[in-house]
Amino acid sequence: MNDLPGFQAVDQYIADHLEESIAELAEYCAQPSVAAQNLGLRECAELVQAMLEKRGFQAEITPTDGAPVVFAQRGGAGTPGADRVLLIYNHYDVQPPEPLELWESPPYQLTRRDGKLYARGVSDDKGQLTSRLLAIDALLATFGELPCTIKFVVEGEEEVSSLHLKDYIEANQEKLAADACIWEFGGVDHRGVPMQYLGLRGICYVELSVETAKIDAHSGLGGSIFPNAAWRLTWALSSLKGPDERIRIPGFYDSVVPPSDYDCELMAALNEVADEYKERYGIEYFLKGMTGGPELRIAEVFEPTCTICGLNSGYQGPGPKTVLPARASAKVDFRLVPNQKPEEVLAQLRAHLDAEGFSDVHVELLGAEPPARTDPNHPFVNQVVELAEPVYGMPMQKVPMTGGSGPNHPFIETLGLPVVTAGAGYPGSQAHAPNENLRIDLYQQHARHMARVIYAFGNP
Amino acid sequence: MNDLPGFQAVDQYIADHLEESIAELAEYCAQPSVAAQNLGLRECAELVQAMLEKRGFQAEITPTDGAPVVFAQRGGAGTPGADRVLLIYNHYDVQPPEPLELWESPPYQLTRRDGKLYARGVSDDKGQLTSRLLAIDALLATFGELPCTIKFVVEGEEEVSSLHLKDYIEANQEKLAADACIWEFGGVDHRGVPMQYLGLRGICYVELSVETAKIDAHSGLGGSIFPNAAWRLTWALSSLKGPDERIRIPGFYDSVVPPSDYDCELMAALNEVADEYKERYGIEYFLKGMTGGPELRIAEVFEPTCTICGLNSGYQGPGPKTVLPARASAKVDFRLVPNQKPEEVLAQLRAHLDAEGFSDVHVELLGAEPPARTDPNHPFVNQVVELAEPVYGMPMQKVPMTGGSGPNHPFIETLGLPVVTAGAGYPGSQAHAPNENLRIDLYQQHARHMARVIYAFGNP
Repeated sequence: MNDLPGFQAVDQYIADHLEESIAELAEYCAQPSVAAQNLGLRECAELVQAMLEKRGFQAEITPTDGAPVVFAQRGGAGTPGADRVLLIYNHYDVQPPEPLELWESPPYQLTRRDGKLYARGVSDDKGQLTSRLLAIDALLATFGELPCTIKFVVEGEEEVSSLHLKDYIEANQEKLAADACIWEFGGVDHRGVPMQYLGLRGICYVELSVETAKIDAHSGLGGSIFPNAAWRLTWALSSLKGPDERIRIPGFYDSVVPPSDYDCELMAALNEVADEYKERYGIEYFLKGMTGGPELRIAEVFEPTCTICGLNSGYQGPGPKTVLPARASAKVDFRLVPNQKPEEVLAQLRAHLDAEGFSDVHVELLGAEPPARTDPNHPFVNQVVELAEPVYGMPMQKVPMTGGSGPNHPFIETLGLPVVTAGAGYPGSQAHAPNENLRIDLYQQHARHMARVIYAFGNP
Repeated sequence: MNDLPGFQAVDQYIADHLEESIAELAEYCAQPSVAAQNLGLRECAELVQAMLEKRGFQAEITPTDGAPVVFAQRGGAGTPGADRVLLIYNHYDVQPPEPLELWESPPYQLTRRDGKLYARGVSDDKGQLTSRLLAIDALLATFGELPCTIKFVVEGEEEVSSLHLKDYIEANQEKLAADACIWEFGGVDHRGVPMQYLGLRGICYVELSVETAKIDAHSGLGGSIFPNAAWRLTWALSSLKGPDERIRIPGFYDSVVPPSDYDCELMAALNEVADEYKERYGIEYFLKGMTGGPELRIAEVFEPTCTICGLNSGYQGPGPKTVLPARASAKVDFRLVPNQKPEEVLAQLRAHLDAEGFSDVHVELLGAEPPARTDPNHPFVNQVVELAEPVYGMPMQKVPMTGGSGPNHPFIETLGLPVVTAGAGYPGSQAHAPNENLRIDLYQQHARHMARVIYAFGNP
């Protein structure tokens, strides 16, 4: 496609003010904001508020039972779509920086090496926010006004399952009302192709635990007469799924919506992943005899899962210890696809365990998010995809569903918005790991893409 | 029964020389000898050699691939059974003293409080050895000679599964040849009744492990397409035993010898344990609907077991972590009854896992000892039991089998000896724990009992 009119000037502004934007990002990253450690959250929310006010946004901080939420709004003018509202979702919290000894430069001191910026949170997702602010600066400088209303909602608990965001959104539907939403992440894949991720699986994460005694016994004493927590747990887990990979909980698959023909077409158009997965993870085979191709990619994201994430019981050190464990526990992660609901899965799980004779197995819910997806043929999706090509020099590829989870459900279902991804991420960003980094070229490209998306949104 | 003739003088000697014997025990306990830490073993073996030479024994130290073994011998004379040989088995190694902060007095400094002696190893089993030496001293002082030949075999690896004792015994059968054997432990139960333990279950202790990948994956990525080590392990374990407690490994029960009528009679005569077990361990029920009585006690020791001692995989910390584990492992302890063999069980386990589709589950042997028992009607057993009554003032109770394991198999099967227990132990001895202790009254009683056993053995 042809590029939008006037965007040479916008791009020039972005290039000219890149260093200024990086300096702002450095200040943002210098403020620790670790949700898991309740560290610097209020301070960071205030910093975000100030950054938005600097661009003429009306910004407010709303306390929750967890980290405060920053909401900001700036009206548009002088375009056919001046009344249209674009909602941008970001988060100011970051993952803990530990283990510190693996960082090559201090995690809260933005450091430039080889065209990349290193700092905790620089990619996930502080750099996404400042890049978007750079796009807004460029539009304001070039056109004097924003072409539409922009709202920001910037939360501080994304790295701890967005514990209070759902309630905040439900309580503020009018304030957050919009026509479309830009998600916090996005970027290119390992080939450099920009990707459009359009759905997230849901999650129901539980801990199963059994206690059969107050203290461990000697295995020589109790082996043939005492209940053993590790055995109880093993049998309860085995009742959930067998080697055929079919989840045995009655009703579990009832509300699953299979992928549409268009979904399958989009999945078929994606790159082959089999060899890369085998290489990266050192796995020798895929489940259910799959070898690759669209079948593997579709199974990866369109099937619900029941994954044991951890097992813990008794003695785990070197050598033998003859102990009969009093306690055993497992972390189990169900990934859900539309239209499964975490609360239904939780109830089905409890009923199943009871029916199978495992009422002694305690179930604790550790995390829940429903699945949600945006129609890959939505006009806004197509617009964002088309506007990537002049920036990245190649078509953006649609991915109708991804395997991970996140808080997109209240945006899609409660606010009724199409949600698209766009961002400066890439597979080597080390998000959540030491030496998290952001490629400066992608940072600039994201700003250019965002400026186009906002402009086109206000000039339909 | 009536007591043996001349034993007033023997008992008087033991009473008069008690403090001397405790001083010797203090010196013995002052020498650290921790097999698990390879600490002081050679020095302790030399100390044992010197203690035995002091009584006119010919004592030698034989190196092994682990800790050296002390062998000692002293002939008897002037009695009808002067040619008869009694073999006494002890060990000079002790458990690690850690955690040190829980000791009320230093672990290597014998300390007297409230009629008890506190030190690491004082009960398990350094005090058993010095009490036996006190009995020998009393016999020598009273009768001028030993009434039979006594051999000692004192090893230094009992606390680490007697790794090299079996080979030592097999290589030295002629030297160790005897007519009967006194075991390293023994004592009274919680009611103060002296007990005669006549059998030990065998053990086959394995670690099962699975590796499905080189690194953990994100559960959002691999849940529906990657093999999961924790699931593979769970299913493999479930194939070994189900909630009916029946071990499913083909051939596992084939060589099991059930308890005889006399075994069941002896088990029926023992004290009820159900309430004590429920109270001590906080368990609410026993397996297979058992509630107590002889049924429970017989199942406890005469049934083979398959016990999960530990489970380890993936994330085990607080809260959720969405990881798909590359590795999982379990410690599994099979207790074996006569005539099961650990090497057969190991082979059956491997064959079973392969047949069930779990050839990816690695099996590592961490410990193996065959079961062995002494006929509870053996004349030597009856003699030792009868000689306890004049000392303890009540009949010694026979226990045909116990749930634990130990190196009695080469004594019973290779050397062909009846093995009886006798000792100064009691349930509060804290063996293997901080504040290990020995009751002085039981120490003296054990010496008196042992003097009678040795005397009667040489005067049949």
